[in-house]
Amino acid sequence: MIVTAKQIAQLINGKVEGNENVTVSNLAKIEDGKKSDISFIADAKYNSCLYATQSGIVVIKDDFIVERAVDCTLIRVKDPRLSFIKLLQFYDSLKSEKLGISKHAFIAKSAIIGRNVYIGEGVVVGENVKIYDDAKIYPQVYIGDNVIIGESTIIYAGVKIYESCQIGDFCILHSGCVIGADGFGFFPTENGTYEKIPQLGNVIIESNVEIGANSCIDRATVGSTVIHQGVKIDNLTQIAHNCTIGENTVMAACCGIAGSVYIGKNCIFAGQVGVKDHVVIGDSVMAGAQCGIHKNIADKQTVLGSPAMEAKKMMRVFAAMNFLPDLIDKINKNNKNENET
Amino acid sequence: MIVTAKQIAQLINGKVEGNENVTVSNLAKIEDGKKSDISFIADAKYNSCLYATQSGIVVIKDDFIVERAVDCTLIRVKDPRLSFIKLLQFYDSLKSEKLGISKHAFIAKSAIIGRNVYIGEGVVVGENVKIYDDAKIYPQVYIGDNVIIGESTIIYAGVKIYESCQIGDFCILHSGCVIGADGFGFFPTENGTYEKIPQLGNVIIESNVEIGANSCIDRATVGSTVIHQGVKIDNLTQIAHNCTIGENTVMAACCGIAGSVYIGKNCIFAGQVGVKDHVVIGDSVMAGAQCGIHKNIADKQTVLGSPAMEAKKMMRVFAAMNFLPDLIDKINKNNKNENET
Amino acid sequence: MIVTAKQIAQLINGKVEGNENVTVSNLAKIEDGKKSDISFIADAKYNSCLYATQSGIVVIKDDFIVERAVDCTLIRVKDPRLSFIKLLQFYDSLKSEKLGISKHAFIAKSAIIGRNVYIGEGVVVGENVKIYDDAKIYPQVYIGDNVIIGESTIIYAGVKIYESCQIGDFCILHSGCVIGADGFGFFPTENGTYEKIPQLGNVIIESNVEIGANSCIDRATVGSTVIHQGVKIDNLTQIAHNCTIGENTVMAACCGIAGSVYIGKNCIFAGQVGVKDHVVIGDSVMAGAQCGIHKNIADKQTVLGSPAMEAKKMMRVFAAMNFLPDLIDKINKNNKNENET
Repeated sequence: MIVTAKQIAQLINGKVEGNENVTVSNLAKIEDGKKSDISFIADAKYNSCLYATQSGIVVIKDDFIVERAVDCTLIRVKDPRLSFIKLLQFYDSLKSEKLGISKHAFIAKSAIIGRNVYIGEGVVVGENVKIYDDAKIYPQVYIGDNVIIGESTIIYAGVKIYESCQIGDFCILHSGCVIGADGFGFFPTENGTYEKIPQLGNVIIESNVEIGANSCIDRATVGSTVIHQGVKIDNLTQIAHNCTIGENTVMAACCGIAGSVYIGKNCIFAGQVGVKDHVVIGDSVMAGAQCGIHKNIADKQTVLGSPAMEAKKMMRVFAAMNFLPDLIDKINKNNKNENET
Repeated sequence: MIVTAKQIAQLINGKVEGNENVTVSNLAKIEDGKKSDISFIADAKYNSCLYATQSGIVVIKDDFIVERAVDCTLIRVKDPRLSFIKLLQFYDSLKSEKLGISKHAFIAKSAIIGRNVYIGEGVVVGENVKIYDDAKIYPQVYIGDNVIIGESTIIYAGVKIYESCQIGDFCILHSGCVIGADGFGFFPTENGTYEKIPQLGNVIIESNVEIGANSCIDRATVGSTVIHQGVKIDNLTQIAHNCTIGENTVMAACCGIAGSVYIGKNCIFAGQVGVKDHVVIGDSVMAGAQCGIHKNIADKQTVLGSPAMEAKKMMRVFAAMNFLPDLIDKINKNNKNENET
Repeated sequence: MIVTAKQIAQLINGKVEGNENVTVSNLAKIEDGKKSDISFIADAKYNSCLYATQSGIVVIKDDFIVERAVDCTLIRVKDPRLSFIKLLQFYDSLKSEKLGISKHAFIAKSAIIGRNVYIGEGVVVGENVKIYDDAKIYPQVYIGDNVIIGESTIIYAGVKIYESCQIGDFCILHSGCVIGADGFGFFPTENGTYEKIPQLGNVIIESNVEIGANSCIDRATVGSTVIHQGVKIDNLTQIAHNCTIGENTVMAACCGIAGSVYIGKNCIFAGQVGVKDHVVIGDSVMAGAQCGIHKNIADKQTVLGSPAMEAKKMMRVFAAMNFLPDLIDKINKNNKNENET
């Protein structure tokens, strides 16, 4: 969509410098910008890009000192980063919406479908499913019997939801994620084989949750694996059976959370973190990338390393490791000298 | 299904205390139980929950000492945990079974389908596929040409099986797992590019194997990647080409097993374990979470850490790390003092 | 297909010893070979297998010294490994090709489909998609609006490609991989919740790229996540938004590359490697399995460990760790003695 500098300035509450009738149609990084693009400088390290960019409009901080003439139209705002997000949201809102129920979807007669729902080709909707208003179900999704899909929730192509799971309102489930597969429960028999423990619970995902592509959330043995509201989970992450993930906790990609783990509210996990089964993690905990949490963590702690330690201590261990080889060499040499003496 | 305390006591060989005509319809955790639920106390740390629970029936160990009056009906058994599993299996057996072959499945004429098979909507069954009796193929599964699916095997929605792979009897494959994708084989050319080595082998999964959601088992270059009987693999795990996984070996989520690895029988791998290509691992090996196995491991060893070491030794290293920063600080300080002297 | 020793010798430029009219129909490992198989000895450690194998034909190095009579026909070549790959390619070329556009695919009227394209059952092709000549799209693939699929590219069953992404020529995308899901971008609000940052960019995959099963490549916030030509990415790997992966870089399974990472050309990453967001990695970098890269790496470096260090240094740290527990014990003992004195 083509917009003028003047229109954008209104949208993001900014002040135009230069030609306010210049038009752009796209957002671009300042380094990649073309005449028809608008770009942002939100970080001072990109300041010098202003003089080289081809972008038609550049949004800068209100106190940015422009050192020489530039070709582009400038818009000054209080917080370029927030303005950037606001403009992203504006462009996002212009995208055409998918609508209608494909005649090539397979919808059980007993399913209840709300108003203004999109259901794409090849979708399977099981018995007694409820899909609330404004939900969007992309092609090839599988929705097992008795599943509930909340209002305005978006489920991208190929998501699989096993029977009896519940997804809240305003959630986003990305392609390939699997909700409600059996928890990994077996008991050993005397001859060394394992017998399956049936997994009869479900998964409850509350509202405003986003689950990344190809992530897995297993159903509980009994009761529910619960993802509380506002949780954001990135791609390729495993949440095992009977876990609880607290409100507004955020988890980067490739984490593995073992069974019956309890994670509190407002935690931030970096990528590839592992948590041992039955561990209890408090609120507002930060876990560094690749850390391995094997015991309970109190509120507001930051942990690093595998096995994980309190971050400041672990930083000292990491630093000390640099000295370790020389120290050991010296000691081994001394020992050798002593032995030879 | 509604059952009485009396009926349950018969099923799990227990002794009723209280009203044997009380009915329940669901299993629940002791903390979550309602009047219509049955719960179990298998771990002494939950003993005190008995006095607060709302559950209609609680199963306890035969020598449990009940210290004050309780509202619920009690059933005393020898092993509450086993009774719990038995009851799970009973409830599981009551679930209605999927049956019939959808007219919206795409089944090659040359495919041979056994008796009492379920094939859901959107399933693709390739040329010369054989599906044995009582198998259940959920919607949107892809079964490539010449694949064999054994008796009573369950394949959940969206599983993809490449051509010529073989799945045994009584297996369970969870949604999104990919069986038989090409092994990762390339050879470098003189100009820095890589040329693909065709992967002409297959995957053989023997009987009683369970593969987790979104896990991947790659086809061999020639011959077969083999998952022996009774193996249980959790979600999001990668088994590369030409691997062999021995009978009754169990692997938790997010493991990565590189090419041509041989793993023996009855091993237990925790989550996020990595194994280097061509490594040979014996029988009954235990591997701790996140460990990185880069060399052969003998039978019955337990390993930890990355790079992995024998567990007791690694525990000592982990413990010693706690002291390392202070030690290094002290040494650096001494050196400084000496230098200044 | 049945071929004679003579025909194979011509194909791989080898010299027959024994019956040149012997026929074989399959490739097999030397240990597994049957009368109807051809095998290769490319590694001297398998030399002794020559005398035990059942394979009808064995390909050996031209200077291989055969110490006693063998049952099989021999073919001597300069480089058995390359001959093996050549023969794999020959067998691969004989496989029957999938062709034709299924009437059970859902193809938007505005899509443009080239010549000689295969599109399987249940495939969804969105508006304004372009699929070039000789591409093969297996069943149940989802191709969002405005996607471009290059010439001769193979997309296996169940791949999901979000709108506006571009896939080059001669690429291979394995089952379950997800191209163009939203990058993981949120900003915190004052009440502790997170608001979604729309992800309006796309993914550009250049030519000759292979992406493994269930791997994920997220779309950029603006602009493109770029996978340059010749890149090979194994299964279950996460490439976050705004990353760039340089030409001919190879990545083993289960890696996690965070947002806005730049990786140069000709790098080799082992499995389960993690890279922190915004890190810049040079050309020809080697990263060891499970390493955690948290800062920029110059060209041609090899790194190991988590946090990653230069490899030689890290090898010394790993070696020193072996001595650490005894050292600490000794020091603690000395301290105790001093305190007691």
